[in-house]
Amino acid sequence: MAAIETYLNEHSEAFLKELFELLRIPSISADPDCANDMATAARWVADKLAAIGMKSEVIPTKGHPIVYGESPKVDGAPTVLVYGHYDVQPVDPLDQWVSPPFDPEVRQGRIYARGATDDKGQMLTHLLSAQAWLQTEGRLPVNLKYLIEGEEEVGSEALSAYVAENTEKLACDCIVVSDSGQFGPGQPAITYGLRGITCCEIVVQGPNRDLHSGSFGGSITNPALALARILSGLIGDDGKVQVPGFYDDVVPLTDLERKQMAELPFDETQYMGQVGVPDTWGEAGFTALERRWARPTFEINGLTSGYQGTGGKTIIPARASAKISFRLVPNQSPETINEGIRAMVEKLALPGVKVEVRGMHGAPGLLVPLDSPYVAAASKALEHAFGRAPVMTREGGSIPVVATLHKQLAADTLLLGWGQDDDNAHSPNERFLVEDFYRGIRASARLWEEIAQI
Amino acid sequence: MAAIETYLNEHSEAFLKELFELLRIPSISADPDCANDMATAARWVADKLAAIGMKSEVIPTKGHPIVYGESPKVDGAPTVLVYGHYDVQPVDPLDQWVSPPFDPEVRQGRIYARGATDDKGQMLTHLLSAQAWLQTEGRLPVNLKYLIEGEEEVGSEALSAYVAENTEKLACDCIVVSDSGQFGPGQPAITYGLRGITCCEIVVQGPNRDLHSGSFGGSITNPALALARILSGLIGDDGKVQVPGFYDDVVPLTDLERKQMAELPFDETQYMGQVGVPDTWGEAGFTALERRWARPTFEINGLTSGYQGTGGKTIIPARASAKISFRLVPNQSPETINEGIRAMVEKLALPGVKVEVRGMHGAPGLLVPLDSPYVAAASKALEHAFGRAPVMTREGGSIPVVATLHKQLAADTLLLGWGQDDDNAHSPNERFLVEDFYRGIRASARLWEEIAQI
Repeated sequence: MAAIETYLNEHSEAFLKELFELLRIPSISADPDCANDMATAARWVADKLAAIGMKSEVIPTKGHPIVYGESPKVDGAPTVLVYGHYDVQPVDPLDQWVSPPFDPEVRQGRIYARGATDDKGQMLTHLLSAQAWLQTEGRLPVNLKYLIEGEEEVGSEALSAYVAENTEKLACDCIVVSDSGQFGPGQPAITYGLRGITCCEIVVQGPNRDLHSGSFGGSITNPALALARILSGLIGDDGKVQVPGFYDDVVPLTDLERKQMAELPFDETQYMGQVGVPDTWGEAGFTALERRWARPTFEINGLTSGYQGTGGKTIIPARASAKISFRLVPNQSPETINEGIRAMVEKLALPGVKVEVRGMHGAPGLLVPLDSPYVAAASKALEHAFGRAPVMTREGGSIPVVATLHKQLAADTLLLGWGQDDDNAHSPNERFLVEDFYRGIRASARLWEEIAQI
Repeated sequence: MAAIETYLNEHSEAFLKELFELLRIPSISADPDCANDMATAARWVADKLAAIGMKSEVIPTKGHPIVYGESPKVDGAPTVLVYGHYDVQPVDPLDQWVSPPFDPEVRQGRIYARGATDDKGQMLTHLLSAQAWLQTEGRLPVNLKYLIEGEEEVGSEALSAYVAENTEKLACDCIVVSDSGQFGPGQPAITYGLRGITCCEIVVQGPNRDLHSGSFGGSITNPALALARILSGLIGDDGKVQVPGFYDDVVPLTDLERKQMAELPFDETQYMGQVGVPDTWGEAGFTALERRWARPTFEINGLTSGYQGTGGKTIIPARASAKISFRLVPNQSPETINEGIRAMVEKLALPGVKVEVRGMHGAPGLLVPLDSPYVAAASKALEHAFGRAPVMTREGGSIPVVATLHKQLAADTLLLGWGQDDDNAHSPNERFLVEDFYRGIRASARLWEEIAQI
């Protein structure tokens, strides 16, 4: 691998130049005016794959095209599927950008541009690492498949359909995704679990119009009160969700996981200060980190009812509604959980109102066993590139498309994020440390070797 | 009283003409452009009082003027204070009026104009009845005081201050207010009780910004959930308010009251159909009518938190708030109740959030004993004028200014409404049955006689 290391060092400027090329394409998937730019970006990725020596294709969809690439066949070697995306978030508010979002520049060791970290910069590391292998060794130690979509920021609809219809084409032993971050500056992480999610809206319909609370109050069920009772009844004093059977399928934290999480440098006081709360709260019997990463939760995302202006208005509102979501963990099934939620909401409803649960949809969580050989391989690759062993983390958020890949392809999934918490993904002045870009390429190049040796 | 009856019959057209004069003045208290019209209307009322033979004055205030009138002193006779208001509601939406709001006309036996029933038409009945007495008998059987304000529709601020400073001047045995309605068409009512009220806003502050519910969920108290638990905890499964001591001072319904309410033609099924609810609900152990009129309640008037747009947004909102109100009944003290609410809200708060109770203010309810001689006198007067004995009702709503008068002057208060439910007070095409106007004058004229005979 010495030749590869030399290649990486000698081509660092060329790599940066290539990333800048891609960053200059304003591929905002949410913006209909960017349709041509989306096609240009897809083409750029496909051309890059071809230039490295991959079979590549641009696959049209109802939405933005998917780019697929495949490395020259290596018999007997494992197959790794790299997932990434070439689309980016909108750039508003534009006036808060120090340099224009599609005119990348390096300041104080950081690449500033929309898409720098999310996900053009991170995605590209896995192409450049393959290039280094092929240019120096003339071969790759593994079979690589690339699935690079253009709709990650708008729901991955086309990709989900494509994956469902092409499980054989996409078959692999392991999925690698670099679309997140390290645990902290210089502290790499392997994210081996994601939470799932299920969302819905509860709508409580009371009287056919807002009523005078004096004339009618006492005889008519107040829909906002009925809603409050439903929401309140969904969780117990111990912070546990009260839906019957809710925890039945939860994969418990292992002793090893709890030990690893406890050893992470997580300062709860600092955390509270950062978000401005006087205390943490949640499910009894677990630490804050355990609850964030590995336990299911119930959250109210929004409440609406009656009069919301200044002063008061003494009405019984005609209706009240809440947007709610539950984070799920492996192996909770969104479908089973949804049935339980529906039944519980119905049970908690007061008489005199009509309660509806609307727009229910969900995605499962995912979990890679900590003793997976792919986790071990990634761990060695990251330690090599970052000079420090990675910590094992889970992620509280949900990445539905990754959960879909994981489920459809039934392969261990590794989230190897090269970014930082403060990279401003989705915000003005998105950035990516030049050093993280290079370490990502180096880690990726080593990863193929480590996986080959499993 | 035969001469009076004749006088009333002979002057019916003149009375209507006078009411039209007053209705033509666009005295919208909420509209700064109507300042001159407010002065004109106050002057009109004062002049009318003087023309009848009363001492009258226009009292300037920080807001709109108060009109005060006093009849020639009748030694040894009881004193009645008539409260009314010459200001009217705004007229929007103007395009829904069939005839212009300040160009009164009679259609199908109804006077159409802003202020027809609320309150110019009703208020004027008590001046015209006195006129009939003085023109025919040359005397009044009681002492009358008139307190006619111009800020009823905007909060009665000036009046409240004036009453507090002039309790001796306004001293009386009984207060009469005609600013409401009959129980139904042709079925007069004496309203002998009003509910009080206390209002506030509960604000729950969570993190210093909306947080990603995946990354943070499980460790941070969701302020919307904390709010739901507070609101839900304020009321029990039996519909009873859970604030300790809440019911301690409640004057219980007497057997007579319960019997009278049960006998009223109140069709619960029709009532539910009218407001479009599948069931009624409230405090256990009471009928819907008892709960609306004579039992305290808790209502949520509005809820606000987090994301309220279309679709979903998986956040932990930074804050959540609810506008709430409690209807009170005699003898609950708003001050004592407010203390209890504050303490209960604090007790119900989850850890990890900051809870504030804001803008608390209230007004007590009022209750005239059913065996009050003034109730009996009014009953006879109404039966005489409407050809039917009045029913005894209480009102679920609160009229803070009436509660203030009742409390400050410590006098029995009678709400003798001549209007109808469908008179469109506060709405386009406000109206007042010509017949109700005349019956009101007749009832008022008789009332002075009946009170004199107590």
